[in-house]
Order: sequence, then C-alpha cells, then structure tokens
Amino acid sequence: MSWQKAEQLYEGKAKKIFAVKGESELLLQEFKDQLTAFNAQKVEQLSGKGHLNCQITTLIFKFMQDRGVPTHYVESTSETSFVTKKLTMIPLEVVVRNVLAGSTAKKLGMDEGTALEKPLLEFYYKDDALADPFISDDQALMMKAATESEITEIKKLGLQVNALMLELFKACDIRLIDFKIEFGKDKSGKIFLADEISPDSCRLWDTKTNEKMDKDRFRRDLGNVLEMYQEVWNRLKTKWSKYV
Amino acid sequence: MSWQKAEQLYEGKAKKIFAVKGESELLLQEFKDQLTAFNAQKVEQLSGKGHLNCQITTLIFKFMQDRGVPTHYVESTSETSFVTKKLTMIPLEVVVRNVLAGSTAKKLGMDEGTALEKPLLEFYYKDDALADPFISDDQALMMKAATESEITEIKKLGLQVNALMLELFKACDIRLIDFKIEFGKDKSGKIFLADEISPDSCRLWDTKTNEKMDKDRFRRDLGNVLEMYQEVWNRLKTKWSKYV
Repeated sequence: MSWQKAEQLYEGKAKKIFAVKGESELLLQEFKDQLTAFNAQKVEQLSGKGHLNCQITTLIFKFMQDRGVPTHYVESTSETSFVTKKLTMIPLEVVVRNVLAGSTAKKLGMDEGTALEKPLLEFYYKDDALADPFISDDQALMMKAATESEITEIKKLGLQVNALMLELFKACDIRLIDFKIEFGKDKSGKIFLADEISPDSCRLWDTKTNEKMDKDRFRRDLGNVLEMYQEVWNRLKTKWSKYV
Repeated sequence: MSWQKAEQLYEGKAKKIFAVKGESELLLQEFKDQLTAFNAQKVEQLSGKGHLNCQITTLIFKFMQDRGVPTHYVESTSETSFVTKKLTMIPLEVVVRNVLAGSTAKKLGMDEGTALEKPLLEFYYKDDALADPFISDDQALMMKAATESEITEIKKLGLQVNALMLELFKACDIRLIDFKIEFGKDKSGKIFLADEISPDSCRLWDTKTNEKMDKDRFRRDLGNVLEMYQEVWNRLKTKWSKYV
C-alpha cells in the first residue's frame, strides 16, 4: 500500500510525526538524525542515525508482534519512516532494568553494572519542563497519567517486552542492561507498545568486551557512536533476518 | 517504674538513643534542641525544642495506641525523654500527604497547597550519604528495605495513622498537610510506629490563618519557630488533655 505523508503534527528531539492523507486512524513516524542527552542540553546531528534507528525499531517491533505484543507499527514507508496506529500516548516513560546503570545506580549509591535479582520496572513522568521526573505508581495515579488497571497492564507488558528483548539481544551477543519504552492506547482502550526501541533508548553492552553500544557513547563522549549503532543493526539483521 | 539511662548507642540530628540498664529489650529516646534542614546543611540550636517535641510525640503516640496503632512508646522518663521498645528499624521514611507541598509539589510542577483527592503515601530510602532519595515500592524491595508483606503492612498503617492524625489536628484547628513517620519491627516481626511525630516531621497550617506551624518556619526563615511549636503543643494539650 502507498501512504502519503500529510501535515507535520509534532516534532520531538529524535522524531517527527505526520498525518497520513485520508487516514484518520494512522500517523507517520519519521526518525531524525539528531541525538540529544541530558534533557536536550547536549545536542548533535549524526548523519545516518535516523536510518539505523528506524531499521532497528522496525525489526524489534516485528519481533514483538510475532510474539503477541501489540505494537503501533503498521508498515514501513521509507528507510527512515513507518506508518503507525494513531494512539493516545500515556505520559510515562517505562524503564526496565536488568543491570543497574545511570540515574538509579547513582541515586542508590550502587555500582554501575550491578546485576539485579529480578528486573526492576520504573516510571518517569513525561514532561520536558520538569525533566521527566521519576515517580511511584501512586504518583502516576495521582497525576492521572494512567488508571490503576492501565498501570497493571503496562507493568505486565513492560516485563514481557523485557523478557523478549533479553532473548533478542542475547542471540546477538549483546547484553541488555536497561531500556525505555512508551505505550499508547487506541479508542477502545487497548494498550500498544509505541514510540521506538533503539540504541537511543536502550543500554546495550557487548557480551564479550563489555563495550557500550548505545547512547551512553554520546552522553559520555566515548566516540564511534554511529559505528556502534551500525554494529547493533548488523548483528540484529544477521541473527533475525526474518524480521528485516 | 524507674528506668536508668545506660550508655549512648546513637546520636542523630534531633535525638539521642541510650541503652536502659538491665533491660535488653528497651531503649531510651532523648530529644535534642537541635534543628536541622536540607540534609543537615542548615543547623540551629533552639532551647526548649526538644522538650516540646517530646511532649507532642508522647501525646500523639498515646493517642495512636488508644486507637489500636502499635507504637514503640513505653513510658516517659523526663520532660525530654521516654523509654521505647527496642526495634529493628525499617530504613524507610514514610511520608503521607493530604495537600501537596515541598519536594513532591516542586518535582511535579504543582502549586504548594493543592489538595489531593486521596492521601498520597511515599517512601524515601533512609541514607544520609544519599540524601534520603525518593524510591518506589519496587526499589524498596530491590534495596531489601522491607519485604513485600512488610510494605503492604506499612502502607496500611501509614494511611491509618494519617486518618487519625487528621482527626487529632482538626480538633485543634490545625490543617495536616503532610508528615513523615518511621517504623520498626520486634523480634517476632510485628511492626510498630517508631521514631517521633512532631512539628519537625509534619507540615501543620493554622486552619484559619494558613500560617505555618512547623519546621518550614525554620527552613524558610519565617521566624517564631519555637513560639509556633509551643502553640501546637498548647492546642494539643488543651484538646486532648486525656493524653497528657
């Protein structure tokens, strides 16, 4: 099918969202080359990043859908875009951690790299002006970010996605440290995995060398950002060619 | 009964804890005149504060015990001290909010004074070196601060204490904004309300004038700190003379 991009509805840090001509229930999600960190205080253009993240997200969403996780992905439209279901986004960043790193390790005074006995799921309230603060389930309810049953469903889906992500990346000799996902709901209230899953939103360490293969290379000025994103994509498309 | 203070076991910011001679299951809790805020970055001596907070805490704990909330309070020993059960403390500061103020209002970009539809219970991980960070239930479990059943019990007790505190202060024409409590457990695992409840650990606003009657007077340099603590005590001992 051939979709036609209509007016731009939203421009975020790493993506643009467009209407789709004649389709009120669809959107077009386009990946930008821009890389940002620390609530957009650090910004860089990285030619080819949008292409890689679009390919990686597409493969992961196809892999998830094949295993029963509903996602907003509908069909690819270019090397940097795909058509999605139009959803009402839930204003929570859902972070799942298998190994401690980043803000939670720092907050709790624990070493980066501490493996967790079981996955830890966290909510951050999506609000750029507030710098996406960490919140508890009760605070998410208080902010009416989601209802109690939606929170239960999101936590269940988050842990299911984590189990599948572990399988996906293990096959590529990549250790999944943590990742951030977002959810949206359709008119009937059904919840879908949305947004993207890419090295921008995951921590991925090479199983053999422990080398970082994700946005921490940019956050921490480790260099070779694009090369490592490319390596993630090379491994994924080789091991999971079925979903390319 | 006459208890004898033995060696000092611990000195905190606002209290000292002593052993009790010949009593391995008891402790003596002594209230200091010292006032601290912002993780002890701001410190002041306020002669008479320890006395007032001891009286206020004692009255509140007697009120709670009379209504079925187990507390660590055993018997008063002086105007600034009482004997308590010896408990293993649970390293969580349990905050219950009826009206938004302080760190949570700021974090979520909401106005101080916003009344909540229902009480909000929060956990902070007790660790001075980490500045007592806000944590979710799942993070409390991960840190092994408490077990799942202990967390359920603490949340139930916290909300019960809040309902009783609202009743207690309403009778004194004081609006209970929020408060912080701590819990400990005895050898059998039974959970008790412990530590203190005083204007150091509550936000209390005069119902008629909205004037602050708590440690925010110190935090925000509003003056008349001791006078307001005294006023809280005067109202409590008048309305609830049964527990003096």
